[in-house]
Amino acid sequence: MAKINRNYLKLPGSYLFSTIGKKVRAYEEQHPDEKVIRMGIGDVTQPIVPAVIAALHEATEEMGKAETFKGYAPDLGYEFLRKTIAEKDFKARGCDIAADEIFVSDGAKCDCSNIQEIFGLDNTIAVCDPVYPVYVDSNVMAGRTGEFDASLGKFERVIYMLCTKENGFCPELPTEVPDLIYLCFPNNPTGSAITKDKLQEWVDYANKNGSVILYDAAYEAYISEDNIPHSIYECEGAKTCAIEFRSFSKTAGFTGLRLGFTVIPKELKVEDVALWDLWARRHGTKYNGAPYIIQKAGEAVYSDAGRAQIKEQIAWYMGNAKILFEGLKDAGYEVSGGVNAPYLWLSTPKGMSSWEFFDHLLETAHVVGTPGVGFGPGGEGYFRLTAFGSRENTIEAVARIKAM
Amino acid sequence: MAKINRNYLKLPGSYLFSTIGKKVRAYEEQHPDEKVIRMGIGDVTQPIVPAVIAALHEATEEMGKAETFKGYAPDLGYEFLRKTIAEKDFKARGCDIAADEIFVSDGAKCDCSNIQEIFGLDNTIAVCDPVYPVYVDSNVMAGRTGEFDASLGKFERVIYMLCTKENGFCPELPTEVPDLIYLCFPNNPTGSAITKDKLQEWVDYANKNGSVILYDAAYEAYISEDNIPHSIYECEGAKTCAIEFRSFSKTAGFTGLRLGFTVIPKELKVEDVALWDLWARRHGTKYNGAPYIIQKAGEAVYSDAGRAQIKEQIAWYMGNAKILFEGLKDAGYEVSGGVNAPYLWLSTPKGMSSWEFFDHLLETAHVVGTPGVGFGPGGEGYFRLTAFGSRENTIEAVARIKAM
Repeated sequence: MAKINRNYLKLPGSYLFSTIGKKVRAYEEQHPDEKVIRMGIGDVTQPIVPAVIAALHEATEEMGKAETFKGYAPDLGYEFLRKTIAEKDFKARGCDIAADEIFVSDGAKCDCSNIQEIFGLDNTIAVCDPVYPVYVDSNVMAGRTGEFDASLGKFERVIYMLCTKENGFCPELPTEVPDLIYLCFPNNPTGSAITKDKLQEWVDYANKNGSVILYDAAYEAYISEDNIPHSIYECEGAKTCAIEFRSFSKTAGFTGLRLGFTVIPKELKVEDVALWDLWARRHGTKYNGAPYIIQKAGEAVYSDAGRAQIKEQIAWYMGNAKILFEGLKDAGYEVSGGVNAPYLWLSTPKGMSSWEFFDHLLETAHVVGTPGVGFGPGGEGYFRLTAFGSRENTIEAVARIKAM
Repeated sequence: MAKINRNYLKLPGSYLFSTIGKKVRAYEEQHPDEKVIRMGIGDVTQPIVPAVIAALHEATEEMGKAETFKGYAPDLGYEFLRKTIAEKDFKARGCDIAADEIFVSDGAKCDCSNIQEIFGLDNTIAVCDPVYPVYVDSNVMAGRTGEFDASLGKFERVIYMLCTKENGFCPELPTEVPDLIYLCFPNNPTGSAITKDKLQEWVDYANKNGSVILYDAAYEAYISEDNIPHSIYECEGAKTCAIEFRSFSKTAGFTGLRLGFTVIPKELKVEDVALWDLWARRHGTKYNGAPYIIQKAGEAVYSDAGRAQIKEQIAWYMGNAKILFEGLKDAGYEVSGGVNAPYLWLSTPKGMSSWEFFDHLLETAHVVGTPGVGFGPGGEGYFRLTAFGSRENTIEAVARIKAM
């Protein structure tokens, strides 16, 4: 008699964005004449840049000819892409990462959620609170978190590292030492960044304690300030304690193309076993590579034309972020983020809960955001807006919020 | 202090095809003048057909324009593709499968290896022996199989269902009832197919015992005989006991494009929980969908032009299969498969082991095949050749084998 994985039943309710989707659909059905502006899900809206489109067409042509057709990709990804990444994302920033320490995948979400598999079920995990829900949920499913305490909004065996306006949305080093530490900077949802000095403290802490840092740098392309590291490998000693996740989704608008990569330095060992070997085994056994044409598209992101076009696109989104930031400030909101990340993080007004403010904003301004509590109990009393909308909608949303 | 997942260390040696790759590279380095013919890995060689190439170009254009750009795909896959699949793969064959029972993914390998996650660690699994190694390996990694017994070539808690020439490479119903039963028909590596009557016995057995059948139908497009089911849902009662995996890799040459899907009927329940809900939760939390342009390519596979072009391609591969089958018979080999599958399965001559024959074939005929034992202990004494090579190489390989 088959048995299900009962850990799945510990997940409370459904995935945050599905719930938001349902609420918005219900509202739209009841108010067919209102134009709802979506600033909830962190999905890009600008088209893929011309240099990447050209690469997609070219690679498609190759797939249609016997002489240039490509079947299964190499396990780690094509070397042309891994070499380019190692060169332009790491060596150019003084990080000594080799091409074969890079594992190309179909996105950071899969990698962030699958990485826990190479660790034992007896590891304790720590997460920023609030944070992108995938880190906790994937560990719940694996059975690493214990039960959910609904009164606290927390799983019993997870270390929640509180991020509030008091600590600048950057957590303190935990007193109870976690085995696995998920860090996400620039942060989703708070939009906060971490300085190189601060991140160095985390690296030192992990090396001292034998913890592994799982560093999600999906938003590094939005960093505008000089003292903010783009990679954890800018810190000394990170190669013996950290895995880094990168994504083309927000960097180059690849949410619908799917491409990302994970960096595992060869010298990173746990119990004398190289984590590189375990992840390579997982890749070889349970994954079959990102499509060739998408990997060619990824390579084009690093071309001179690609970089220039993407830089412009990111600047454009960050223009939205500035409009939101200033508009919300003018309207009297306490707001942060938006400088090194495409997310604005505001304190809900008048002691409203996150979901109360969600409903209020939807009903009054017809603007959809994301309730902070959806990212963890520490997000209660906060609210996320994204800079990924159109310029027109961003300006309109600010005007409506000001008029509330 | 972080701990690794020690189950990974139970996997003996490295992945079959990596080992073969290393042996072939070593041979080529030592014999730079010999032309090695590869009939080992089951990778296609024919280019993507014109109807699909056209769809890729068209979808690429859409991604480059703001009005038609697509971000994150819907969790289950785009409806245009799911509807087409439900219609053409299932309803057309009398199987009552709805569009929302189809989960689009980046390939059957990922789905086959991830599906075990929604089941508890206390389930016993049964696999055909020999079979595609991913079923066992993914369960080893999860900790469901116990230790490897090197003397038997078996994991202690796996039920191996022997497939030999004596039973026509179709296993008997096991006396010890497994919780999860992996079936793969047409079979990789034996090339054998299962009749509808036989498959019905498995469905009845699973329903009677509360087992779940995990049915890998990746090679269904190669079926040429009438009494062979293309889907397990052609059998009565399969919707309450079976999950089916499908792939575009071998059907339409998508090994380098990556597309597949999994069917979970809504009425399939275990412990009163719909498996559909669990898999949907996994998809939503740990996966982000196949690229839009690849899903459009998948849709084009079902267009009139696409189907005609693909039918021709499959017939061409099966032409290779026939040449191999007849050539091997002429050369005195005992051979099966090649009628409903692109694989030929031969008994090794003169009591040679699979790996001995691998080395012998590589050294004498410079032909690369796959040792049967790489697919499980029951594959010892057998050897796999694939029909995916070029016509020229297939003919040349047969000539060389005859001359051995």
